[in-house]
Amino acid sequence: MARLVMKFGGTSVADIDHIRNVARHVRREVDAGHQVAVVVSAMSGATDQLIGWCAAALSNRQIFDAREYDAVVATGEQVTAGLLAIVLQDMDVNARSWLGWQLPILTSDAHTSARILEVNGSELIRRFAERQEVAVIAGFQGVYQQTGRITTLGRGGSDTSAVAIAAAIRADRCDIYTDVDGVYTSDPRVVPRAQRLDKIAFEEMLELASLGAKVMQVRSVELGMVHNVRIFVRSSFDRPEDIDPRGNPPGTLICDEGEIVEQQVVTGIAFSRDEAQISVRQVEDKPGVAAAIFGPLAEANINVDMIVQNVSADGKTTDLTFTVPAADYQRALDVLVAAKPAIGYARLDGATDVAKVSVIGIGMRSHAGVAAKAFRALAERAINIRAITTSEIKFSLLIDAAFTELAVRTLHSLYGLDKATA
Amino acid sequence: MARLVMKFGGTSVADIDHIRNVARHVRREVDAGHQVAVVVSAMSGATDQLIGWCAAALSNRQIFDAREYDAVVATGEQVTAGLLAIVLQDMDVNARSWLGWQLPILTSDAHTSARILEVNGSELIRRFAERQEVAVIAGFQGVYQQTGRITTLGRGGSDTSAVAIAAAIRADRCDIYTDVDGVYTSDPRVVPRAQRLDKIAFEEMLELASLGAKVMQVRSVELGMVHNVRIFVRSSFDRPEDIDPRGNPPGTLICDEGEIVEQQVVTGIAFSRDEAQISVRQVEDKPGVAAAIFGPLAEANINVDMIVQNVSADGKTTDLTFTVPAADYQRALDVLVAAKPAIGYARLDGATDVAKVSVIGIGMRSHAGVAAKAFRALAERAINIRAITTSEIKFSLLIDAAFTELAVRTLHSLYGLDKATA
Repeated sequence: MARLVMKFGGTSVADIDHIRNVARHVRREVDAGHQVAVVVSAMSGATDQLIGWCAAALSNRQIFDAREYDAVVATGEQVTAGLLAIVLQDMDVNARSWLGWQLPILTSDAHTSARILEVNGSELIRRFAERQEVAVIAGFQGVYQQTGRITTLGRGGSDTSAVAIAAAIRADRCDIYTDVDGVYTSDPRVVPRAQRLDKIAFEEMLELASLGAKVMQVRSVELGMVHNVRIFVRSSFDRPEDIDPRGNPPGTLICDEGEIVEQQVVTGIAFSRDEAQISVRQVEDKPGVAAAIFGPLAEANINVDMIVQNVSADGKTTDLTFTVPAADYQRALDVLVAAKPAIGYARLDGATDVAKVSVIGIGMRSHAGVAAKAFRALAERAINIRAITTSEIKFSLLIDAAFTELAVRTLHSLYGLDKATA
Repeated sequence: MARLVMKFGGTSVADIDHIRNVARHVRREVDAGHQVAVVVSAMSGATDQLIGWCAAALSNRQIFDAREYDAVVATGEQVTAGLLAIVLQDMDVNARSWLGWQLPILTSDAHTSARILEVNGSELIRRFAERQEVAVIAGFQGVYQQTGRITTLGRGGSDTSAVAIAAAIRADRCDIYTDVDGVYTSDPRVVPRAQRLDKIAFEEMLELASLGAKVMQVRSVELGMVHNVRIFVRSSFDRPEDIDPRGNPPGTLICDEGEIVEQQVVTGIAFSRDEAQISVRQVEDKPGVAAAIFGPLAEANINVDMIVQNVSADGKTTDLTFTVPAADYQRALDVLVAAKPAIGYARLDGATDVAKVSVIGIGMRSHAGVAAKAFRALAERAINIRAITTSEIKFSLLIDAAFTELAVRTLHSLYGLDKATA
């Protein structure tokens, strides 16, 4: 017997037929003798409608009260939770719905993007044991204890709910049912020979997620890492009937690196074409210059990613290069032009036809020369590297956008990630 | 300065434009210096959709878990409350939404038709005083304290919420905004000279409501009577701009009879054509016979209304006559045929082409001969009276359905209720 959290997103609960399919997945695990807590999102489209109403409610002000927005939007998950409980009962599975304030799931008071502070899982554990009752929990929401107001967790909130609940009930695993069947070594649309990973370490998944692999939100992976919750990413499209509860279902387990016996040096190749590069030429090499550049950009809500500053050659001036999202490129230049007197630079250079390619793997920590291999391979294909940044388990290269696919496929082969051809 | 509850039903909050109109009504009262709590229903159609989903969720069982149904259905009012709070804030009116569990509104555990046990109004009163904050309360719902589960109040629940909240915050008045502009002396579609009452006593309204005048549910009037909450029925279609906050808006005040200075003998004439008459002939005149007849009908969920039993002429047998809803007529006969051995009667007579006309007025208590006047007037028009029942402030007559309009108009004139012609 295991204790499981099963999380289903909006497309998996889009209507009653989909909810019935979810219920069959749940019953499969219950029939296998497991204790189950289910976390559900709003029916797809429901949240957009609720947000649309909130927006339409304004005619004078620019933004709505976040507390009221949360009260309105949280109803989406409440409806799904109640309906899934009814469907489960209809299938003779003992079930009960739970809202954020009922457990409770205590959060900060940052309405619309609250942070989970504490989840009380004791009542759920008692009911698992005494009534074999499945808990159906409304994801994406909690309550701020001091005011008793409903809060929502923001983007990807239901994943975060699931992982936090898994930690609170000490679940053996948190199954994230999603529209892909796991985490891949690279984007299969660009790399046909990309393959699904059986396991990936939390740290690696964090890098992949923050680099734009959309499988899971960064914060839910972080939470899993902190509480050591094993997260299993699997497909919600598998028919419940086809899954052998005693077999190994297809999917990717995100877990502690210690659980991964045969660690590859490189786990995956991520890339992003949505980048723009800005170089600030000949700024004075003195304390406070970086702050003078990046302070105004942060105030303008422009997200700066790669930052490269080389050691000054003459001890007087240096060049700073960084990347911003392509959509913010012109705005970033405007900010820097306005801040020129405070920064003091000779010239601004920029380019929007650039891409970032990243190589991720915990094994890099203990293997020398991993990056050097990449530089060589790319040079052989005449791919120019514009900038390089590295961290313990990742290095990123800025290249001309035209070479993205070639670079990603080259690196994917180079590190032995290609799946064997049939 | 007064303290007001304003209640708006589903058609008054059907979409954002309607909600904005409601907000203008609220602001009018706030601008006049009043403290305001608003009670809202779900957007019209929303509740039906939620109920439809619950029904669709079943494929094996016949009924759904009432706790889960309540959790799903209560979201309708939650959405409206949040949206109205946002719209009010957009109009620079300080406002905050409240759900049943937040105040809390404590109820019994009779899910789907819970009874309000206690409403805590202290936080609202504090906020009226300290922040001039309007409370926007989700109607129709509460919470069962022992389980922390959401309950709903059933049909007309939002009216009941409004009156209970008015009692809890000691409101000067509870305004029910509805699709009619008040309570009339009779149905204007049948009696063109019917006129709106300025005031009506709780007891009279109770009789009118239970006789099918659809303005307010019986239970909310009862609650108003018990807690002496003055209820003002008024139109939600009046444009807020057209109402002089210092004038007397059109509508009907339901209040204690002591507040009605010039009490009419008769306040209104109600009628119902949806009746069927059943006579049980020559039942033995002994204890237990009434129970033998009405017990099986109650078990079959058939609502028995007028009951007439005359004193036995021979001391041995008597006739019992009563009415049932026309839709239940055949079923009621079947029940009585099946119970014949236990009851012991000679014959069943019945008729479906009958109508009940009722004359209501607190003044009857102190005026003799009120009913006698009616018998005479109807006899002059050759309207045969099949049965008569009376209570302290009402008498009802069963007549042939064909004479309904004539009888109602005759009585309406007879008791001086006709409005003066222009």
